[in-house]
Amino acid sequence: MEAASGMSSEGRPIQCKAAVCRRAGEPLVIENVMVAPPMSREARIRITCTSLCHSDITFWRMKDPPGICPRILGHEAVGVVESVGEEVREVEKGDVVVPVFLPECGECEDCRSTKSNLCSTVRFRVSPWMARHESTRFTDMKGNPIYHFLFVSSFSQYTVVDVANLAKIHPSLPPNRACLLSCGVSTGVGAAWVTAAVEAGSTVAIFGLGSIGLAVAEGARLCGAGRIIGVDLNPDKFEIGKKFGVTHFVNSGECGDKPVSQVIKEMTGGGADYCFECVGMASLVHEAYASCRKGWGKTIVVGVDKPGSKLSLSSAEVLHSGKVLTGSLFGGLKPKTHIPILAKRYLDKELQLDDFVTHEIDFEDINRAFDLLLEGQCLRCVIWMNK
Amino acid sequence: MEAASGMSSEGRPIQCKAAVCRRAGEPLVIENVMVAPPMSREARIRITCTSLCHSDITFWRMKDPPGICPRILGHEAVGVVESVGEEVREVEKGDVVVPVFLPECGECEDCRSTKSNLCSTVRFRVSPWMARHESTRFTDMKGNPIYHFLFVSSFSQYTVVDVANLAKIHPSLPPNRACLLSCGVSTGVGAAWVTAAVEAGSTVAIFGLGSIGLAVAEGARLCGAGRIIGVDLNPDKFEIGKKFGVTHFVNSGECGDKPVSQVIKEMTGGGADYCFECVGMASLVHEAYASCRKGWGKTIVVGVDKPGSKLSLSSAEVLHSGKVLTGSLFGGLKPKTHIPILAKRYLDKELQLDDFVTHEIDFEDINRAFDLLLEGQCLRCVIWMNK
Ligand SMILES: [Zn+2]
Ligand SMILES: [Zn+2]
Ligand SMILES: [Zn+2]
Ligand SMILES: [Zn+2]
Repeated sequence: MEAASGMSSEGRPIQCKAAVCRRAGEPLVIENVMVAPPMSREARIRITCTSLCHSDITFWRMKDPPGICPRILGHEAVGVVESVGEEVREVEKGDVVVPVFLPECGECEDCRSTKSNLCSTVRFRVSPWMARHESTRFTDMKGNPIYHFLFVSSFSQYTVVDVANLAKIHPSLPPNRACLLSCGVSTGVGAAWVTAAVEAGSTVAIFGLGSIGLAVAEGARLCGAGRIIGVDLNPDKFEIGKKFGVTHFVNSGECGDKPVSQVIKEMTGGGADYCFECVGMASLVHEAYASCRKGWGKTIVVGVDKPGSKLSLSSAEVLHSGKVLTGSLFGGLKPKTHIPILAKRYLDKELQLDDFVTHEIDFEDINRAFDLLLEGQCLRCVIWMNK
Repeated sequence: MEAASGMSSEGRPIQCKAAVCRRAGEPLVIENVMVAPPMSREARIRITCTSLCHSDITFWRMKDPPGICPRILGHEAVGVVESVGEEVREVEKGDVVVPVFLPECGECEDCRSTKSNLCSTVRFRVSPWMARHESTRFTDMKGNPIYHFLFVSSFSQYTVVDVANLAKIHPSLPPNRACLLSCGVSTGVGAAWVTAAVEAGSTVAIFGLGSIGLAVAEGARLCGAGRIIGVDLNPDKFEIGKKFGVTHFVNSGECGDKPVSQVIKEMTGGGADYCFECVGMASLVHEAYASCRKGWGKTIVVGVDKPGSKLSLSSAEVLHSGKVLTGSLFGGLKPKTHIPILAKRYLDKELQLDDFVTHEIDFEDINRAFDLLLEGQCLRCVIWMNK
């Protein structure tokens, strides 16, 4: 399948298959593309598995900037380093790596601080280019550029990623599990583990039991939370949630005149210690905030709402309640630091990843992954890129 | 002046002078009142000094509930215990005490937790009654009830206060300094010290250099902040602020087209570690939030806006910036625990209180204190109640 097979491809372009988003919202087109060799501080990766995340769908539909075509989507993946550019010390050929949209240079003030995961040297942004060079490594067979996505572009058999966006993991991790650590599951687990720092024995409420909300539950379970209350409109989510540590359930469609926050306050004797908004509705943040315990309750915004949306809180409640509001990108995790820890916890049978994978398909069926996720029965659909 | 002078007044009503708010917004009327003996869990206090706080003015003006007349305002004070009711173990006759609007029972889940200062047993609320008994201890000379204010009512030579609202301090503290610990100064110092937990060497920005903002500066200085940036429309505030640790100043009226947050980001190379909103304008909270450092910046709401006001933040910024928003009542301090510490730090010449007192007057001139505070030249006006 690759032009370079049988001899070293290092330093030369690789021809391979990629699923290209040629027009917003239309099925991806599987076509041959050329993947240039990595430039300085970059590595070329042979993608083993990728999985579809909701942000792929959001940007796939987006007609206006930062939507752009033709583009190679995909940002939740695992692969093997094929070759590296100049000045790369962090990884070498053959390493198993998880590419992550969030850079970690390891050297700036933020990367050196335990309080931040927002690298100042290689800044996260939604860009059509590489993280450190304003250029693309993809061209179509006519030589026209194809744009990158979130510094990863994993819907290609080969991609090029900045070393700041790579976390090296132990090769024994199955690739159809490892790819989950690249975005959604890590975000949810990290939100509980790092951003909220959930205390053992505490009470957690999670608004929205999609993959991210379930990953928050899994993270809270790992932190030893005493009660994990799931809130969702779909009562089926309770059974699914139990696999990830959910112990109680509130059907938000069946609370009658009572606000969900009132129900949660009654269940918990005053409010949950931690509330996570995982739906991505700014208006729900207020309800989550109201659901958390006066004196010390923390509300963590995890869901992504539409650009420009505002969240509104009562001034008096913020002033008088002693509650905390926060949010985080990638669950507050530093990719290079925390992904290997999560990988080890999976191997040690502490972190549960298996039940997130509801579907596995081959690369040629990649458009089915979009249908599956949109139909709502799918948590994660893993796509095998190089079977 | 007191009916009971010369013999023990214990167990009997005391006649004394009080400044009564008979009509909202009109000068207080100094008149004789009867102060009933303390009921269970209460103490009767001879007020030595009281000082005027902005909340007194807010409620003095308030025509609709929770505004109520006739009422004895005043909640920033120090006094001496005259007698105690049944089941009082915490204080005894002769103790010097600082009454505080915020109760601390010492036994509930919140009082036992280091994370909360919002007692669940004796709840703070704006009530015309005592904290634990729904009744008043004040009557006028015709026997009609006069209402309480914030569980303190210190504009009377004698008042009755629940033991949950009393902090005992060392008698060597001058009363015209001790009274400041009862509300405003403690609130500001506590916001920096306990709510924000300002780290040594960090950068702090304070929006609004009134008494509370200056007290935040003083608290930040005690925490070892490296840079303390004051933001105010009045350039005179920089000189005043220097007495309390302010090292840099932004005149928010002279930033031109540049938002204050942009100016602060440029001064600090990315934003302040801690931003305090001390003006009480919900709309300013967004600017404070924007002024704080991505990755770890904390915004602390200290100013009291109008009831019902909402604050609005960008959903995406909350989600992506890793910043924290919080607020606190009484600066997160537990009255019984923290006021004695602040008193000791004043005696040890660490905490600076003297420069907060810009005016001292006698009780009969109490209405002048309102004029002084409203004219804006006054930080704290101390009123001697029993000279
Ligand atoms: Zn960095
Ligand atoms: Zn994602
Ligand atoms: Zn209590
Ligand atoms: Zn006050």
